[in-house]
Amino acid sequence: MDTFLIDDLLRGFLREDLEHGDITTEAIFSGHETGSAVIRAREPLIAAGIEAVAARVFRLLDERLVCEQMAADGQRLSRGDCLMRISGPVWSILRGERTALNLAQRLCGITTLTNSYVEAVQGCKTAITDTRKTTPGLRLLEKYAVRCGGGRNHRHSLSDGVLIKDNHIAACGSISEAVRRARASVPHTIAIEVETDTLAQVVECLRCGVRIIMLDNMDVPMLRQAVMMIRDQALIEASGGVNLHTVRAIAETGVDIISVGALTHSAPACDIGLDWESAAPPVC
Amino acid sequence: MDTFLIDDLLRGFLREDLEHGDITTEAIFSGHETGSAVIRAREPLIAAGIEAVAARVFRLLDERLVCEQMAADGQRLSRGDCLMRISGPVWSILRGERTALNLAQRLCGITTLTNSYVEAVQGCKTAITDTRKTTPGLRLLEKYAVRCGGGRNHRHSLSDGVLIKDNHIAACGSISEAVRRARASVPHTIAIEVETDTLAQVVECLRCGVRIIMLDNMDVPMLRQAVMMIRDQALIEASGGVNLHTVRAIAETGVDIISVGALTHSAPACDIGLDWESAAPPVC
Amino acid sequence: MDTFLIDDLLRGFLREDLEHGDITTEAIFSGHETGSAVIRAREPLIAAGIEAVAARVFRLLDERLVCEQMAADGQRLSRGDCLMRISGPVWSILRGERTALNLAQRLCGITTLTNSYVEAVQGCKTAITDTRKTTPGLRLLEKYAVRCGGGRNHRHSLSDGVLIKDNHIAACGSISEAVRRARASVPHTIAIEVETDTLAQVVECLRCGVRIIMLDNMDVPMLRQAVMMIRDQALIEASGGVNLHTVRAIAETGVDIISVGALTHSAPACDIGLDWESAAPPVC
Amino acid sequence: MDTFLIDDLLRGFLREDLEHGDITTEAIFSGHETGSAVIRAREPLIAAGIEAVAARVFRLLDERLVCEQMAADGQRLSRGDCLMRISGPVWSILRGERTALNLAQRLCGITTLTNSYVEAVQGCKTAITDTRKTTPGLRLLEKYAVRCGGGRNHRHSLSDGVLIKDNHIAACGSISEAVRRARASVPHTIAIEVETDTLAQVVECLRCGVRIIMLDNMDVPMLRQAVMMIRDQALIEASGGVNLHTVRAIAETGVDIISVGALTHSAPACDIGLDWESAAPPVC
Amino acid sequence: MDTFLIDDLLRGFLREDLEHGDITTEAIFSGHETGSAVIRAREPLIAAGIEAVAARVFRLLDERLVCEQMAADGQRLSRGDCLMRISGPVWSILRGERTALNLAQRLCGITTLTNSYVEAVQGCKTAITDTRKTTPGLRLLEKYAVRCGGGRNHRHSLSDGVLIKDNHIAACGSISEAVRRARASVPHTIAIEVETDTLAQVVECLRCGVRIIMLDNMDVPMLRQAVMMIRDQALIEASGGVNLHTVRAIAETGVDIISVGALTHSAPACDIGLDWESAAPPVC
Amino acid sequence: MDTFLIDDLLRGFLREDLEHGDITTEAIFSGHETGSAVIRAREPLIAAGIEAVAARVFRLLDERLVCEQMAADGQRLSRGDCLMRISGPVWSILRGERTALNLAQRLCGITTLTNSYVEAVQGCKTAITDTRKTTPGLRLLEKYAVRCGGGRNHRHSLSDGVLIKDNHIAACGSISEAVRRARASVPHTIAIEVETDTLAQVVECLRCGVRIIMLDNMDVPMLRQAVMMIRDQALIEASGGVNLHTVRAIAETGVDIISVGALTHSAPACDIGLDWESAAPPVC
Repeated sequence: MDTFLIDDLLRGFLREDLEHGDITTEAIFSGHETGSAVIRAREPLIAAGIEAVAARVFRLLDERLVCEQMAADGQRLSRGDCLMRISGPVWSILRGERTALNLAQRLCGITTLTNSYVEAVQGCKTAITDTRKTTPGLRLLEKYAVRCGGGRNHRHSLSDGVLIKDNHIAACGSISEAVRRARASVPHTIAIEVETDTLAQVVECLRCGVRIIMLDNMDVPMLRQAVMMIRDQALIEASGGVNLHTVRAIAETGVDIISVGALTHSAPACDIGLDWESAAPPVC
Repeated sequence: MDTFLIDDLLRGFLREDLEHGDITTEAIFSGHETGSAVIRAREPLIAAGIEAVAARVFRLLDERLVCEQMAADGQRLSRGDCLMRISGPVWSILRGERTALNLAQRLCGITTLTNSYVEAVQGCKTAITDTRKTTPGLRLLEKYAVRCGGGRNHRHSLSDGVLIKDNHIAACGSISEAVRRARASVPHTIAIEVETDTLAQVVECLRCGVRIIMLDNMDVPMLRQAVMMIRDQALIEASGGVNLHTVRAIAETGVDIISVGALTHSAPACDIGLDWESAAPPVC
Repeated sequence: MDTFLIDDLLRGFLREDLEHGDITTEAIFSGHETGSAVIRAREPLIAAGIEAVAARVFRLLDERLVCEQMAADGQRLSRGDCLMRISGPVWSILRGERTALNLAQRLCGITTLTNSYVEAVQGCKTAITDTRKTTPGLRLLEKYAVRCGGGRNHRHSLSDGVLIKDNHIAACGSISEAVRRARASVPHTIAIEVETDTLAQVVECLRCGVRIIMLDNMDVPMLRQAVMMIRDQALIEASGGVNLHTVRAIAETGVDIISVGALTHSAPACDIGLDWESAAPPVC
Repeated sequence: MDTFLIDDLLRGFLREDLEHGDITTEAIFSGHETGSAVIRAREPLIAAGIEAVAARVFRLLDERLVCEQMAADGQRLSRGDCLMRISGPVWSILRGERTALNLAQRLCGITTLTNSYVEAVQGCKTAITDTRKTTPGLRLLEKYAVRCGGGRNHRHSLSDGVLIKDNHIAACGSISEAVRRARASVPHTIAIEVETDTLAQVVECLRCGVRIIMLDNMDVPMLRQAVMMIRDQALIEASGGVNLHTVRAIAETGVDIISVGALTHSAPACDIGLDWESAAPPVC
Repeated sequence: MDTFLIDDLLRGFLREDLEHGDITTEAIFSGHETGSAVIRAREPLIAAGIEAVAARVFRLLDERLVCEQMAADGQRLSRGDCLMRISGPVWSILRGERTALNLAQRLCGITTLTNSYVEAVQGCKTAITDTRKTTPGLRLLEKYAVRCGGGRNHRHSLSDGVLIKDNHIAACGSISEAVRRARASVPHTIAIEVETDTLAQVVECLRCGVRIIMLDNMDVPMLRQAVMMIRDQALIEASGGVNLHTVRAIAETGVDIISVGALTHSAPACDIGLDWESAAPPVC
Repeated sequence: MDTFLIDDLLRGFLREDLEHGDITTEAIFSGHETGSAVIRAREPLIAAGIEAVAARVFRLLDERLVCEQMAADGQRLSRGDCLMRISGPVWSILRGERTALNLAQRLCGITTLTNSYVEAVQGCKTAITDTRKTTPGLRLLEKYAVRCGGGRNHRHSLSDGVLIKDNHIAACGSISEAVRRARASVPHTIAIEVETDTLAQVVECLRCGVRIIMLDNMDVPMLRQAVMMIRDQALIEASGGVNLHTVRAIAETGVDIISVGALTHSAPACDIGLDWESAAPPVC
């Protein structure tokens, strides 16, 4: 992740937690003490955002801090494993701790959950993708975390993909008219996907040459039928009603893609903490 | 929530989802169609952020949109109940939908989870509070959602409260020295809280007149002992290892406050959707 | 164009020209005089950005100004035709004039030039598109101006389209490997385009199923050969060496798209001026 | 140009082209490949903005990039000459290329055109200046490019110069009243210029001691008369109807300054490209 | 003052005082109470910034607030006179009070002090001007306050005026060389002022046609000599060692301008307060 | 002070003074000259903001500048003592001078005045604190300057302290109800202070357990009575009518805290100047 894309965001997060300063730490420390600490997994997890996000937070807070990445993004860790070592002014480690951990625990949470879905469909050809149901302000980071977990990204925003939904279709009168309008207007490098609720709509998509068909909220037998109808004529995405119990059965219908909103909107935070390497930061 | 405090944030969220526009909707609609839709609970939940956040998102996107709040923040809703009606340009309803829903589903999630904790300790004198383990960028909104669920807020940032932790104590050599330094430096309108891990530390706090004592990661018997030692000499906060199964027992030890990080870092999103009031938006 | 996408930009343009105020106008006028003026074409042109951009500039400067659009975007005007009337405080009309005109003359210039290309290929099936060779900071506005002139947009940024170029191919060793990597990574809603310099590369593209092929800097006979090889197997874009003299011959080779950097990087400004409707603004 | 004045601007330009990343390059490269490339003139031109603008763009994108200026701003180059070498991560060179080139081609275009005007009046005492008809957002850079071409700058904004125009005069009833008001109000370090359309107005300017007189849209004989009337009593600026065919004759009337809007609003972009120094970037 | 020039500044001031909200008022009021209050002079003063600044602060905080200006900028008020009435939500009046008063008391302070200087030189032809010794961030507002007090503005920034000082002269070797370089480079609409410490320097200025001469830190007899030497050949500014005791004698030497840093860097705040119009805001 | 908290602010101050550049210096210097200068006290003062603010301004302007702090914040200096040495490009020293000095003279002014108050109450137990009557935009810096002078800070904003005033009390009907509401709502780490005008109100405060009582605008005898009533039951703050003549008598009543608005709203700037170390910057 490029620093010029995320630095303003991260500085804003620091300001949110620091407002006009850390009054406890500034009262107690002189500012000259140095020490080191590690960020440690307190439960099994898959790492994400260590170098690009958590370390960057510390560096933006105080450029004298040195961060050493101890786990690659996407690496599976056990309870007690270290993600990163931070050395430098104690004052700054204490002040950046919460912001860095809040980000890391969320990103690792997404990566770990994503990987559970990816493992659940192992052996199938199906890819697991995210959706636009991300935390406002964190989409760039959360979509990165999805990739760290072996997932793939769906479109990033309303600007970089066409997804024709029921309301679009209703407004045009038919799928084919909606597709015609989209083709006439969007850049040719953007493919057109259509959301369908019924097999009749799937047929209409095939008839007008749609290359990506989303099967929305269909049960497994219906998904199976749709997949048989479509075969190689289009890429098939299943969406809706997906959880860790259902995802394997959905994948086994032969769909190419399963999109899962929960990856980003409901992943529980991983338990991650900061431990000082000496018993305590040096006395001032 | 004041608009001047959150408008820039919300505009940033819209830009994240809209980048250079909604290419699907702009291809298919003329921009002149009007219609109305409701935002509806798809599962039981407690409302939060409807007027101040979700409606504001739509208004910032297009000031011609009219938003009618249909559920007060803090109100308990059943599956199918409406939270808000939006009327105006179809184009803008479609473009703002995801950003508004992403915010509302998260805030309602926090409110609903908070309320479960609050109900779990009903009858006890104990207050449930949040922590600083919030989503970066959303603290103001998430702390509001906690209040909507009957919870109370802990300090907002490192600037508006003193919490002396183990590292601070170690750096000073003793609790009393750390407290002395804090008192000598922070504004007199800010009270001093000290985190303790042992009963010996509790005793030391009482000896130097600390008025707020956090009991961190103590089990219920130890909590009970600490409460008996402290009685009315200080406000007591329990923290660590709190979940919906343990919270009642912790409250019954007599602590004044239980702080729960999960309220904000791991609340699952509520299922909320947007339904058009007519079968579909008007044909263009 | 949504106001929340462009207002900050337009306010920045106003600040660039007004810095700490218009010292001439503020010295001479009292601020209470009102009047009206029209923006007028001083040469034949096609209008663009009148309502969404020029009028918005005046409104952001002073919300008491009333702007009446007198020419639709995309409308062909003769010398002397009016684009817009502005009424309200003379002071504000004078201060916003240059910023509004600087934008309008540039956007109309792009629209008018684009339309010359579109007319030059009339009767062919070929679409004229822009490129990413836009004025830094103005891409959203300039791509809109291209559409007003009957052109189509190519990808908006490096984020919303894949274009595999020579360097990408060289780094991978082959087109097919580059295409494989791109397919494995980019969202499925984004189509993959490959730039080719030789017919051999065209063959390789077809062999690995590329659906959009750019023929870069090929002369007309070579373009014709490539088109015959590709036929319906892929969308064909011609690029390089395009000007108003060559564009028709290129189109007649049967390519689907001709991309023209000059639309945005070298369109001369249209001559547009502001005329007061009374002989002069009212005496103060 | 100071970095603190332009860095935010340049970062905004990068974000415009990169939005949420370069999906092609990020799919194909690992991020670890390094290489070098040169930016080369593909037609004769005069360099501008190489170190301060184009190199700065690359550095803001990725501080590991090393940029070596190969042509001084203001230096005349032939087809094939190099402007700059960039070495470092291939990934970052590819991602910054378009933004850097879009700026460099525009600035070189302005410098080259300005120099044509300056050469056209060589031997006369007349200076060529720009106007406020610049590209919104780029004024600081474009005025710099004018200076690189041997031109001089007119006022930068409405804040740093007084130019009394017809509307100002009409509002006051007379030139002398307008001048009186301006003198009474603007800082004494700012000189007052008055725009005139007739010789009678020139006389009025002289009568009330105006030290800078603009002769607007006058033909050559009338300019000559005005110059004879004014002689050393004021600085004389000619404006309007200036192009490369007319500029010499205008200069020979003896005016001190000729201001030319086309320098910035209609300069065609110079043809500049990026060439890799090895045949291709290293294979990953 | 244009709102687009100051709104971001004023919103920043509100955020500085409100951070994440007014916890006292939000705890005690429901948000629905309405009332009205007046801002009142608690000592004699001259008003400044009432409508454009103080009222704007309240409006940006809450657009439901109605502000009625009760004293024009520049108007002399007695103790007890009202400057403005604010009506609307009590909550918002209380939250905006401090920010609005902090601005108003400072601006009125500058205006009132400026006017003392202006009165002290009454009858002389001398103008009193400010300097660049303003409060960082408030220059636009403070220079406006100077004008409200009858003062005039010196240059606004380093961009809109040339002032050649000792270091510039030393670097060039002579005043005439420094003046030559400045004339060759700055826009012709900007006049050149030279700072002098000795009569020899004054002579050199006159010899090379300098039109504005600053006499820096000269005593009254020396000022008188310099004025006699210069007469009508240049505008004369006296600077340094000016206070309310010395200003009249300096003015009587015949200088045209006296610049006074203290107007903005050391004006004491005026005593201004907010009084509720009813005995108290309505009970909630 | 953390750089990420103040850098944007300081850059804004530089832009205010530099707008589009220092036209004098840029005309006269080549940009390559180097030199060194010292910032010197021209009257006795106590230093503040030298390293964190003044040096940072120079560094943000040009990172090649080297700043050497010569006086610690809080150190008492005599006339002629040096605060800081700056070495590097002459051009940048000249351009940053005014902004750095404007800040330093204001901060030193606040520190010096604060220290006069602190010395005036020496031997008493009373602390001197600031108020929220700070310069808009500079609160963080000004509160730091107060600390450098031996003063303490009152609450930073409306967010980090509760101060119940007459209007709050009136709205609730009684002090006890206002206190009850505040306690029920604000975080437990924030203490509650109540403003009183009468001894009856003091009694009411004591009755409902208020721990911080402000005695507003009481004369010395009344203050003495109040102090006797309160004794150790609450912290006592005196406010209103405080100046250097009255502060000692107020302190001797036994109050704990005296808050003084004048520290920040009316401190005169200290006289500080920049002197070149060589007779002049090197000739170019």
